[in-house]
Amino acid sequence: MSELKLPARSEDFAEWYNQVVLRAELADYAPVRGCMIVRPYGWALWENITAALDRRFKETGHVNAAFPLLIPRSFIEKEKSHVAGFSPELAVVTHGGGEELEEPLVIRPTSETIIGHAYAKWIQSYRDLPLLINQWNSVVRWELRTKLFLRTLEFYWQEGHTAHATAEEAEAETRQMLDVYTDFAVREAAVPVIPGRKSEAERFAGANQTYSIEAMMGDGKALQAGTSHNLGQNFARAFEIRYLDQTGVLQYCWTTSWGLSTRFIGAIIMVHGDDQGLILPPRLAPYQVVLVPIFKSDEEKIAVLETARRLHRELADAGIRVKSDEREGMSPGFKFNDWEMRGVPLRIELGPKDVAKGSVVLARRDRPGKEGKSFVAQAGIASAVAGMLEEIQKALYERALAFRRDRTVGAAAYGELKKAVETGFAFSWWCGGAACEAKIKEETKATMRCIPVEQPGGSGTCVCCGQLAREKAIFARAY
Amino acid sequence: MSELKLPARSEDFAEWYNQVVLRAELADYAPVRGCMIVRPYGWALWENITAALDRRFKETGHVNAAFPLLIPRSFIEKEKSHVAGFSPELAVVTHGGGEELEEPLVIRPTSETIIGHAYAKWIQSYRDLPLLINQWNSVVRWELRTKLFLRTLEFYWQEGHTAHATAEEAEAETRQMLDVYTDFAVREAAVPVIPGRKSEAERFAGANQTYSIEAMMGDGKALQAGTSHNLGQNFARAFEIRYLDQTGVLQYCWTTSWGLSTRFIGAIIMVHGDDQGLILPPRLAPYQVVLVPIFKSDEEKIAVLETARRLHRELADAGIRVKSDEREGMSPGFKFNDWEMRGVPLRIELGPKDVAKGSVVLARRDRPGKEGKSFVAQAGIASAVAGMLEEIQKALYERALAFRRDRTVGAAAYGELKKAVETGFAFSWWCGGAACEAKIKEETKATMRCIPVEQPGGSGTCVCCGQLAREKAIFARAY
Repeated sequence: MSELKLPARSEDFAEWYNQVVLRAELADYAPVRGCMIVRPYGWALWENITAALDRRFKETGHVNAAFPLLIPRSFIEKEKSHVAGFSPELAVVTHGGGEELEEPLVIRPTSETIIGHAYAKWIQSYRDLPLLINQWNSVVRWELRTKLFLRTLEFYWQEGHTAHATAEEAEAETRQMLDVYTDFAVREAAVPVIPGRKSEAERFAGANQTYSIEAMMGDGKALQAGTSHNLGQNFARAFEIRYLDQTGVLQYCWTTSWGLSTRFIGAIIMVHGDDQGLILPPRLAPYQVVLVPIFKSDEEKIAVLETARRLHRELADAGIRVKSDEREGMSPGFKFNDWEMRGVPLRIELGPKDVAKGSVVLARRDRPGKEGKSFVAQAGIASAVAGMLEEIQKALYERALAFRRDRTVGAAAYGELKKAVETGFAFSWWCGGAACEAKIKEETKATMRCIPVEQPGGSGTCVCCGQLAREKAIFARAY
Repeated sequence: MSELKLPARSEDFAEWYNQVVLRAELADYAPVRGCMIVRPYGWALWENITAALDRRFKETGHVNAAFPLLIPRSFIEKEKSHVAGFSPELAVVTHGGGEELEEPLVIRPTSETIIGHAYAKWIQSYRDLPLLINQWNSVVRWELRTKLFLRTLEFYWQEGHTAHATAEEAEAETRQMLDVYTDFAVREAAVPVIPGRKSEAERFAGANQTYSIEAMMGDGKALQAGTSHNLGQNFARAFEIRYLDQTGVLQYCWTTSWGLSTRFIGAIIMVHGDDQGLILPPRLAPYQVVLVPIFKSDEEKIAVLETARRLHRELADAGIRVKSDEREGMSPGFKFNDWEMRGVPLRIELGPKDVAKGSVVLARRDRPGKEGKSFVAQAGIASAVAGMLEEIQKALYERALAFRRDRTVGAAAYGELKKAVETGFAFSWWCGGAACEAKIKEETKATMRCIPVEQPGGSGTCVCCGQLAREKAIFARAY
């Protein structure tokens, strides 16, 4: 599986990405065009992502539920921007149980409509608010150009849907979830992100305001890694989501929605990976440590495996996710390559000499070669490994942050912006006008990724038209 | 919500069931006929079920993955019994992205075919076996008569799919998963089940052998609560799932599949519930304990809430799932009814007198009225509550087991069987013939639920035809 060398990441980033996904066995192509199979190793990574997010959702008062896959087609048509945005991407069920349906059903491309319908039924009074529900599911959008994890017909995600009594509460929720995504990306995935506001052109179909977190990939392009939408009263009016306020007056609710998908796995691959394959952040890695026993004779084997199994137990008992590779008929070198391809953050090598000396070799995945190797005593192995995993987690984040810093230019002139977006981000004053945004997109292929929450303050002149600009924006080519 | 009385369980079991599902807010009807929304309380119960099962799957060496929702229609047609079984129930996608598809796609009714296709690609040699994958997902079957949780167009489940080198290993896996389901039902859900073998007529479409666990509901009817199928080489041949054995010969694999669904929630409701509503087994209950503070004056309120919050923390710190009901403007009596409807196993009542005495009142959900109440000291509350929860768990199981025993008749004569299935199970000698099975079904509406794994031994005469019978079978009317 790992016998052929990967294409160099610096030479053919796109092909390197595809090969890493397939050869690390994260995912595979499905028989239906544009669909993917998430293989066990990829799903274990997603399970760790879901656990880290779900904990944060519950801490902020949300509960999970499950809404149906099938939505009456007429529902999609109730909110006019929503139908415009999603109609071209729908998968339509026309037959069920051998008969043609009276009304066609669509497979959910997102669930604002069907959840809006339910909320209208469940919400009666201010006592029922806020309503804070999330669901983990898959959705289907009929995409034409697809790429594993980044853009597939069916993808996995969570979608949060909340209803509030006031505009202020809805905006606070929208921003809170943006913060939750940012915290997750930085602390769990070691992926630096820029939280910010989308332009009108890039908003979710049916939202008053869309916020996103934007990350820089290893080729300098941007990836939208999570979004949070303030839907105002648009869906509340379309679906009659109303409540009786404390004074007995019937009011429309204010709603939000927010989502993060398996696309994030693509971000992890493209931010951290190298020419040897995947590098997973320790906090999300299915296996944090792989232990490779090394021996030649049967006598060596007995001694090495005995020690290896004892160390395995010590690590597992300390809550470290450890995998021992005792496969027969494969050389240690083959195993090293195999686990490097799969991005396991730390390798423990244990041979007869290590057994004799009471030590092991630790090899860091993020620092290939001798530089990343160290000898560590077997006594206290669990705390040494835990400490090293934390170091790796931190180092991955800092490396990605430095990379983004190096490739972000505070472009003041249009020519600078043009050049900047060839290799990374331009962070430029923008007048906020749709015309400038469109012109930049047309001429440079870079889109306005977001107006970052963090602003330098003051004002400047628009990088495109030279008019007064009160905010700086990130422009970049994007996935 | 709980103001109207439920229909009596003994008088209108079907309507009692529907009302409990809706009023305990486990689920609601969706706008598409036959679909359901699993509400947060119901989904929290399902999450606890999935955690209990997933732990067992992982302990027995299985990993999770995700296979696509959409399957080419031609796949379903590759295994001839499979197509016959599932064709009438398919939801068909004919249009995607605004265009008619060249080949229609079906929404998976189950995933043997698409997983078979992937396994054929992934499995090359005996080294790749066994392959032990499970997935948590939803499937769609176009059912005509639907009922929340018991039979819906879309339902949630897990489906395990394994491939093995030998027939013996596949059979051992099939039986192992039957044992896993039995262990889960008994220990986690307090639902007594009878594991056994299905007749040919009741087998899964495409299986050589189907095993199930069968439970008796509160009206004496049977519910199939989980199934495990030995698929022989049927799918391996249809999808070319082959491996090179140790001697270099290409062999077909032997495969299995097994599933347990949200139907199991229906079993929990119908086995344990009573006229006041749901009764949840402590090990699966979203809230194991509800704490209701009781006070009149502001002074009382301060004292009671202070103690209540301290007790809440102690219980939560001990890992007990506790909910404090501090809602304003509702009487304690209303709250008691509300949480009884939702089946919380244990209630803690705390009033000013209890605060003064340093005690609380514990009220068991499974024993209504004074009989289930006891005074317990606040000191050591967590261990008292944990002990009581274990007692309730045990009592629920024993009550359900006694109920089943009382309503199971070892019917030797046909007349006895006819009478037995009006109120419960007949456990009778059966010749194994399809004619007798069909006759019994036709005349009594009872089906052969399973041939239990546990047999008395020896032989007898068939309850229907009087011929020699080597095994006893369970006959019952079923959901």
